[in-house]
Amino acid sequence: MNKNVYLFGNGTADGDGKMKDLLGGKGAGLAEMSRAKLPVPPGFTIATEVCNLYFRNANSVPEEIHQQMLEALRTLEVRMGQRLGDVDNPLLVSVRSGAKFSMPGMMDTILNLGLNDQTVRALEEKSSNARFAYDCYRRFIQMYGNVVLDIGKDEFEAIFDGQKKKAKAKLDTDLSAADLQQVIAGYKKLVEKKTGNPFPQDALEQLAGARDAVFRSWNNPRAIHYRRMNQIPDNIGTAVNVQAMVFGNLGETSATGVGFTRNPATGEKVFYGEFLPNAQGEDVVAGIRTPQPISELENWNPEVYKQLREITSMLEKHYRDVQDFEFTVQDGKLYMLQTRNGKRTGPAAVRIAVDMVEENLISRQEAVLRVEPQQLDQLLHPVLDPASKKSLRQLAIGLPASPGAAVGVIAFTADDAVEKAKTQPVVLVRKETVPDDIHGMEKAKGILTSRGGMTSHAAVVCRGMGTPCVAGAEAFHVDEHKRMVSVAKEGKQIVLKEGDWISLDGSTGEVFEGRAETREADPSSGILATFMGWADEFRGSFGVRANADIPRDAQVARKFGAEGIGLCRTEHMFFAEDRIPHMQAMILARDEKSRRKALAKLLPMQRKDFAGLFMAMDGFPVVIRTLDPPLHEFLPKREELMVDLAVLPYADIKKKRELVAKYERFGAEVKNLKTVLPDLLKRVEELHEFNPMLGHRGCRLGITYPEITEMQARAIFEAAVQVAQRGVKVIPEVMIPLIGGAKELENQKKIVVAVAEEVLQKAGMADLKYMVGTMIEIPRAAITAGGVAEQAEFFSFGTNDLTQTTLGISRDDYNSFRKDYEERKIWPNDPFAVLDQEGVGTLVKMAVEKGRKSRPDLEVGICGEHGGEPDSVQFCYRVGMDYVSCSPYRVPIARLAAAQAAIAGDKSEAMRTA
Amino acid sequence: MNKNVYLFGNGTADGDGKMKDLLGGKGAGLAEMSRAKLPVPPGFTIATEVCNLYFRNANSVPEEIHQQMLEALRTLEVRMGQRLGDVDNPLLVSVRSGAKFSMPGMMDTILNLGLNDQTVRALEEKSSNARFAYDCYRRFIQMYGNVVLDIGKDEFEAIFDGQKKKAKAKLDTDLSAADLQQVIAGYKKLVEKKTGNPFPQDALEQLAGARDAVFRSWNNPRAIHYRRMNQIPDNIGTAVNVQAMVFGNLGETSATGVGFTRNPATGEKVFYGEFLPNAQGEDVVAGIRTPQPISELENWNPEVYKQLREITSMLEKHYRDVQDFEFTVQDGKLYMLQTRNGKRTGPAAVRIAVDMVEENLISRQEAVLRVEPQQLDQLLHPVLDPASKKSLRQLAIGLPASPGAAVGVIAFTADDAVEKAKTQPVVLVRKETVPDDIHGMEKAKGILTSRGGMTSHAAVVCRGMGTPCVAGAEAFHVDEHKRMVSVAKEGKQIVLKEGDWISLDGSTGEVFEGRAETREADPSSGILATFMGWADEFRGSFGVRANADIPRDAQVARKFGAEGIGLCRTEHMFFAEDRIPHMQAMILARDEKSRRKALAKLLPMQRKDFAGLFMAMDGFPVVIRTLDPPLHEFLPKREELMVDLAVLPYADIKKKRELVAKYERFGAEVKNLKTVLPDLLKRVEELHEFNPMLGHRGCRLGITYPEITEMQARAIFEAAVQVAQRGVKVIPEVMIPLIGGAKELENQKKIVVAVAEEVLQKAGMADLKYMVGTMIEIPRAAITAGGVAEQAEFFSFGTNDLTQTTLGISRDDYNSFRKDYEERKIWPNDPFAVLDQEGVGTLVKMAVEKGRKSRPDLEVGICGEHGGEPDSVQFCYRVGMDYVSCSPYRVPIARLAAAQAAIAGDKSEAMRTA
Repeated sequence: MNKNVYLFGNGTADGDGKMKDLLGGKGAGLAEMSRAKLPVPPGFTIATEVCNLYFRNANSVPEEIHQQMLEALRTLEVRMGQRLGDVDNPLLVSVRSGAKFSMPGMMDTILNLGLNDQTVRALEEKSSNARFAYDCYRRFIQMYGNVVLDIGKDEFEAIFDGQKKKAKAKLDTDLSAADLQQVIAGYKKLVEKKTGNPFPQDALEQLAGARDAVFRSWNNPRAIHYRRMNQIPDNIGTAVNVQAMVFGNLGETSATGVGFTRNPATGEKVFYGEFLPNAQGEDVVAGIRTPQPISELENWNPEVYKQLREITSMLEKHYRDVQDFEFTVQDGKLYMLQTRNGKRTGPAAVRIAVDMVEENLISRQEAVLRVEPQQLDQLLHPVLDPASKKSLRQLAIGLPASPGAAVGVIAFTADDAVEKAKTQPVVLVRKETVPDDIHGMEKAKGILTSRGGMTSHAAVVCRGMGTPCVAGAEAFHVDEHKRMVSVAKEGKQIVLKEGDWISLDGSTGEVFEGRAETREADPSSGILATFMGWADEFRGSFGVRANADIPRDAQVARKFGAEGIGLCRTEHMFFAEDRIPHMQAMILARDEKSRRKALAKLLPMQRKDFAGLFMAMDGFPVVIRTLDPPLHEFLPKREELMVDLAVLPYADIKKKRELVAKYERFGAEVKNLKTVLPDLLKRVEELHEFNPMLGHRGCRLGITYPEITEMQARAIFEAAVQVAQRGVKVIPEVMIPLIGGAKELENQKKIVVAVAEEVLQKAGMADLKYMVGTMIEIPRAAITAGGVAEQAEFFSFGTNDLTQTTLGISRDDYNSFRKDYEERKIWPNDPFAVLDQEGVGTLVKMAVEKGRKSRPDLEVGICGEHGGEPDSVQFCYRVGMDYVSCSPYRVPIARLAAAQAAIAGDKSEAMRTA
Repeated sequence: MNKNVYLFGNGTADGDGKMKDLLGGKGAGLAEMSRAKLPVPPGFTIATEVCNLYFRNANSVPEEIHQQMLEALRTLEVRMGQRLGDVDNPLLVSVRSGAKFSMPGMMDTILNLGLNDQTVRALEEKSSNARFAYDCYRRFIQMYGNVVLDIGKDEFEAIFDGQKKKAKAKLDTDLSAADLQQVIAGYKKLVEKKTGNPFPQDALEQLAGARDAVFRSWNNPRAIHYRRMNQIPDNIGTAVNVQAMVFGNLGETSATGVGFTRNPATGEKVFYGEFLPNAQGEDVVAGIRTPQPISELENWNPEVYKQLREITSMLEKHYRDVQDFEFTVQDGKLYMLQTRNGKRTGPAAVRIAVDMVEENLISRQEAVLRVEPQQLDQLLHPVLDPASKKSLRQLAIGLPASPGAAVGVIAFTADDAVEKAKTQPVVLVRKETVPDDIHGMEKAKGILTSRGGMTSHAAVVCRGMGTPCVAGAEAFHVDEHKRMVSVAKEGKQIVLKEGDWISLDGSTGEVFEGRAETREADPSSGILATFMGWADEFRGSFGVRANADIPRDAQVARKFGAEGIGLCRTEHMFFAEDRIPHMQAMILARDEKSRRKALAKLLPMQRKDFAGLFMAMDGFPVVIRTLDPPLHEFLPKREELMVDLAVLPYADIKKKRELVAKYERFGAEVKNLKTVLPDLLKRVEELHEFNPMLGHRGCRLGITYPEITEMQARAIFEAAVQVAQRGVKVIPEVMIPLIGGAKELENQKKIVVAVAEEVLQKAGMADLKYMVGTMIEIPRAAITAGGVAEQAEFFSFGTNDLTQTTLGISRDDYNSFRKDYEERKIWPNDPFAVLDQEGVGTLVKMAVEKGRKSRPDLEVGICGEHGGEPDSVQFCYRVGMDYVSCSPYRVPIARLAAAQAAIAGDKSEAMRTA
């Protein structure tokens, strides 16, 4: 039998801080602190492996492991000089979950375990505090009843509130020991009624029950959801920590608190946290009472404060990272209950990384590795526009719990937030959030709570998700039942209802009525610029480009560090109001001549767009893709036309005028609707496709209508000439989409090259360098990449379409079975977000290898949306691509992901461009 | 410089019969006959390679090769004792095309070359026949003018007909030498007017011009079309044969003819062919005059007949195959102009192969290789039902030019045939067909001509294509302008118009008015059975199964030799009138309980179907695929519903009743249409997909609705038990469609196995063997086949969908650009007909390798439509599949293709099932 139970405490431990896999984060932290002789209440950790064994063993812990636990318990009893269930000197313990990755509040905890009708008297005697003892006992029954015996919290609360009413108590603390004994009697009756058995008096039975419940809580719905959201594997399990109780609620010389060695929201180097005198652990985190800032601890007990500062600062140096700690003061004595690397927001992560380099705590390389690329998203979020702030009414200021601007309509429940978020941005407004709200929090653009502190559930979860949050804004009165929130402002009561607009600034805590304007973040200065500079150093020659269709996006892309445009979708230009009529005329044309006439009108417009892109990208390459979408996308919808045609015989003059307005672009007048509509429908029917994704689009259009490719090539090269003549360095790369093999590319390349040579020759610029290449977005193109590369000067992987075809899943239709697939974990990740390396990745790798074999200097990049997803970027780096291209706002994320891949050094050098 | 010009004649030759690649079929045959000292007019062949050089060299023959030709010409002149263009003793030559593969009538020929205003007089003098000499000259000018100078045939014909009118001549032969001189004058004027130059008098210029024109004719549209149809490569080019003229039109002791050593329509061992006294070569083939049967030659000239029989029978023995020969008798002397292996119909091919084995001419192996698998299709064609024949009016009997039954509506032009064939079966009725009709002939189910013999264009082409043909049915008067055909029958004139039904029996020459019934062919007896028996011997363990959804198809499949069912599409059962209501109820169900209720009604129906399949396939495996199509296919069409809903407010009672009838299955009544229609539309909208091909279908349905898979598994195994209890050997193979990786299969397999174990256990048949496997029809499944095979006991390649996804082309939408792709030869073949070996094939190969690596006894087959296409079958054999599955009627074709692959011995043994 493996060792499955690890002791800690009394200046020693079986495990250590590195054993997170086995002991979970909390268990490893307790072991490490014990070894460092810090004041840790002794206890033991049941390893994470047991969690899997528990589920595999029909939801029970194997007997041998149970025996190991009993042995550890004996040692703990000896160390404490107490015995579990002893009527004179009872040991009381806490039973807590603790997985490798922090999952705050997602799993269960039980405190005060070991109390029963006998031992509670010993506690009363020892503490000389009957009220305390019975409060501990009733809390224990309530927690145990809820967590282990699955009895609703509200049923306990009803009994508790009934007693309060009876005793005319206002606060919980107004209840006397006698009152609490009444409550306990009620609780016990409830338990017996619900379970058919009396509340267990045997302390060992309590311990086994609590342990098993904590294991079970690994698979409660909110834990599963949280893991999915945070991509935490399901098979790692949670450890269970059993630890001697210390009481922060033993009286006014006791307290409990949590804190960070630096501000986890901003990264500022300040001692940060909160505490509550005379309270038990969970009271702080649960956000039920608003705690005091940790700086107040110095006044409350200077000795304890000093000791805590020393211990935590030692821990930060030891772990070389920000620590998130929990402590309890029992009767003036400090106990450390937890330490772990603190979760932090993106801005904090960057600031802490940069500061720690300056403090010589970590190297630049380590700093670059310390920030999750995805976290940068928060720094690139828009912020509230200062002018707009001034124009709106400020309602209140709460705690700046998670930075960023959030503007949305109010929802008061998690379910409402999910529903509303389908159509509008939502701000979730709650008294406080609870773990069950997680699905709504995920969909909200921002969260506002009226209770709880900087370490409340809302604050912690929001920082983890990068969602802006204003917490503990106590000026607000939130009525979740009536779906309204009110605040007194200048003597007036302002009431906001569900669906009203509200704006939050998570960086300042400000809350505004109405819909504020936002402004883009600026990544090119300050700490972020320093940090990105380091990342770029490590990234080296691996490029990051942006997908941009219009000059404005190209300028943003440059600001965010893009080194070129990896994808310009020319069709986006055709959808503009001034262009679509010409596009439609082109499509409706029945012969090449009229098609060319319509194209001639589009030419100068395209030329102007391309010129703008070339200007913005001076010195950097611009990849322009020829027309891609099926032509019917530019025409009215078929079913709409069918309906209009069907009601035409019944249409009155008003309806007819409506139809004329709708179709006047196609020559509709009141008197000719009967001929125009059927004609239009006929053409739309001709173009109708069963599977447009696999239809007449991409290069297939250019092959059927070479004049389209010709016009686009002309626009590209005329623009290039124009801009180059102004002294700008232009590097056009013309990209042919959706090819399935060399022949299609050959066909289109011929057209492009002919136009290019003609235009450049005429301008006397025959030496202007350009490339013609292709997207690899169909499996066959990847499979035949060797032949394709004979024609292509570059490849760009269109992994959106390549994922759709390789998996045989239409992205637009995936939603109808996405839930079923995610629940059953058919794919390791959402394949449209994270590149499916096993399937699609195999084709990508194959194509890079075959392509480079036939053309060693083949330029290779990616322009699918995966190009901005960190794991996928690292994959691209590993298979030897030259660059990734993503949306402008994701450019810094890709730069950081690439830098991390470079540091990991797992690039297959052989695969890079020769 | 390579040798590019090859002499033949005078008992010697530079080349020989094996050099078809270089000399083309005709050139190689002439060389071989020369070497055999047969009477061949001497000449030379310009090699096929020169054709490619000609096109690459800007449409001109390189000077060196031209010089080689001139040298060969000198030798020819010496041999003939004549000189090209010599005014006293002119050499006259024919210039003919001749590719490696016979392309009858597709390319150009010029006869009598060397004639000009001078040499025609020498010909007159030598032949003492002025009419003959001037007829030769005017034919030459006409052919040269048309072929080389590109002047329309009709312009020459107008002049000729004008002269006939003027001379009051009825037949061409009524024109005198003087008349013909008038025609020649007219022709020469026409040429000068059209080309700006007089008709070339220089014989060498004529020769170069004719040669180049023949090369050019390689790329005329009908030659290109013919090659595409017959899968002849475009890059092999044609040779040019220049040969001393012999004249079959020198008078009544001269003749010209063509023949076969056996009947090419039936394979019967009879001397077969036709001849025309006093005619020039092309007159026979062109079908303008109906020639005499070759048996008449014996009466006409017994010596010549005897010599011809001896020569041709020697040639057949020499080549060990049926010979297709051409000959000319000039003034009583026999000349052989061509011999080649004769094209034959499918029935003839089989009969000849079997006969030649019995004659000890060839081995069984050779016999099996002698029949194109595709040709068997003709033997499996339905034949006219004898009873039906009796019930219809027989119109006439023509020549049985190509066997098989054809029933269709009449079209009189090739274009009409193409148009009509889109909606109906078509019989093309023509006076005679010309090479330009090829596109219409391709689309017709059968062809009827009123002129021409068994070797006319129509007859030859139809036999090549396997299209039934009745030729030379002279009782018919065809008026192509008025689009009608008439025939005198029992003193009455019967007139058929365009679109009227007609029925042909190409095996007897019978033509019937109206629409005859047809009956299936029987492949299990007679010569075909003998032949297929040999094929099966060589095929060995490589299996051929059939795709069949219902017991009737399964029985047909057995008759055609299927060794199991490779694909039963269970959904075809759901579309039946008695089932679709339950299917719809299942789809409209809002919860699992009501879904199960509807499924319970489908269970006994499915069970019955499966039982029927198992009965029919006693001892052979039956692969049953679980539900595949998207659910919306079973509901009313979205756009139809939208239209109905849009007009509902205007509907009168009649319209409303119409709607009620349409939707009563969904609970529609007159008073509730306003709620029923929107409700139904809502569900239809929910199920609507943008790309159904890539949507919620296949295993994805079974994952969302496990109860469907469960019901189907139950039906399969309950049926298996039922049938097995009757002593039938049942081998069920349950196939999960559309998986993208192992996980989906694992999920569905679990359900199937659970049901199977339960049902079999209950029946006490736990030892009944079954398999659970999967279709490989998505690229990702092929890529991850190693993992998939850990779950799958068999793979079946669904190459229809695999082609769609690998190429990114929806088969339903391909038509919108198919023409453009075929013209540009983007794919080597239609990828939906012939497996794309480079693209899709690479994935197939990869999947077989990976699959067998992880499960050595993995059963592997194919069930896409490629499973019945000979090239694809051979590919499947080569990559080591265990079987192919195709439609029942294609089973013999697949059996033969597999046998041929086995004989070719190119199976990678290592890849076969361990």
